[in-house]
Amino acid sequence: MASPRWLDDDEQATWRALIATIGLVEESLDKQLQRDSEMPHAYYMILAMLSEADGRALRMSELASINNYSQSRLSHAVARLEERGWVRRDPCPTDKRGNIAVLTDAGLAALVESAPGHVEEVRRRIFDPLTSAEAHQLGVLCRKILAGEAGARPTV
Amino acid sequence: MASPRWLDDDEQATWRALIATIGLVEESLDKQLQRDSEMPHAYYMILAMLSEADGRALRMSELASINNYSQSRLSHAVARLEERGWVRRDPCPTDKRGNIAVLTDAGLAALVESAPGHVEEVRRRIFDPLTSAEAHQLGVLCRKILAGEAGARPTV
Repeated sequence: MASPRWLDDDEQATWRALIATIGLVEESLDKQLQRDSEMPHAYYMILAMLSEADGRALRMSELASINNYSQSRLSHAVARLEERGWVRRDPCPTDKRGNIAVLTDAGLAALVESAPGHVEEVRRRIFDPLTSAEAHQLGVLCRKILAGEAGARPTV
Repeated sequence: MASPRWLDDDEQATWRALIATIGLVEESLDKQLQRDSEMPHAYYMILAMLSEADGRALRMSELASINNYSQSRLSHAVARLEERGWVRRDPCPTDKRGNIAVLTDAGLAALVESAPGHVEEVRRRIFDPLTSAEAHQLGVLCRKILAGEAGARPTV
C-alpha cells in the first residue's frame, strides 16, 4: 500500500463532527422512537420506505440498498417486524430466490401513529439548528458522497 | 401536541440523503475494519480518542459524550476492548463512582496497525467525492447541528 493519505486538521475536524452527528442522530432518534413507539429507528425507516412504494412492497435487496443496510442487518430487522405483524414476506414473482417485503395494515397503522413524534425529533435535532439554505446544502453534500460511492472503484 | 411540523420535499430529500450517508459510513467502515483489523468502527473510535487524550486516558462519561454514544453502548464496547487487552478500566481518582478508560500499549499497537487502512476507507468514501471547500462546509454544518443539540431544550 502507498503511504497513507492522512487527514489534515480541517478534514479531521470534519470527520469527527460527522461521526458525532451520526451518533446524535442514531441515539436521539432511537431513544425517542423506543420511548414513544417501542421501535428502533431502523424499523421506522423500513416501514416508511414500504409505505411509499407501489403496492406497499419492495424487494428485500431494494430495501437494503435504499439505506445502505447490509443484507444481514435488514433480514434481522424484517424478521422482527414480521413477528409484530407489521410486515410480511412474500416470494418474489420475478425472482425465485428473492423475497418481497410487504407492509401490512397493522404496520401502516404503527407508522402513522409514530410519525408525528418522530418528525418532531428529526426537526429538533437536525433542521431547527440549520437555516433552509444550510439544510439544502447538507443534502447536496450527502448526495455527492452517495454518488461518489456509486462510482467508486471496487475495494477488492 | 401541536400539529406535526412535517418535512417539505427538499427537507425530506436531505433527510433521506443523510440517513443513507450514515448507513454508508457505518457499513463501509465497519466492513473494512472487520475485514482488515477484526474490529468494528466503534472500537476504532474509542482507541483513537484515548490515544489523543492526556495520559491516554479518559473518563467513561467523556468518552461517551465525544461520539454521542449511550453509556450502555460504550460500556459494552469497552468491556470487549478489555477482553482483548487493548483498554483497561481504572477507578477515577476524583470520583469514586466513576471509571477511567486507559489505552494499553497493545491497544495503541492495534490502533497504529489499523490506521492506514481505515483512513484510506474514510478518504475514499467521504472526502474523495467532495472538494476541499465542500468537505469544510460539511464540517461546519455538522458542528451547527451538534451545537443546536447542546442548546436544545430538554426532551424531559
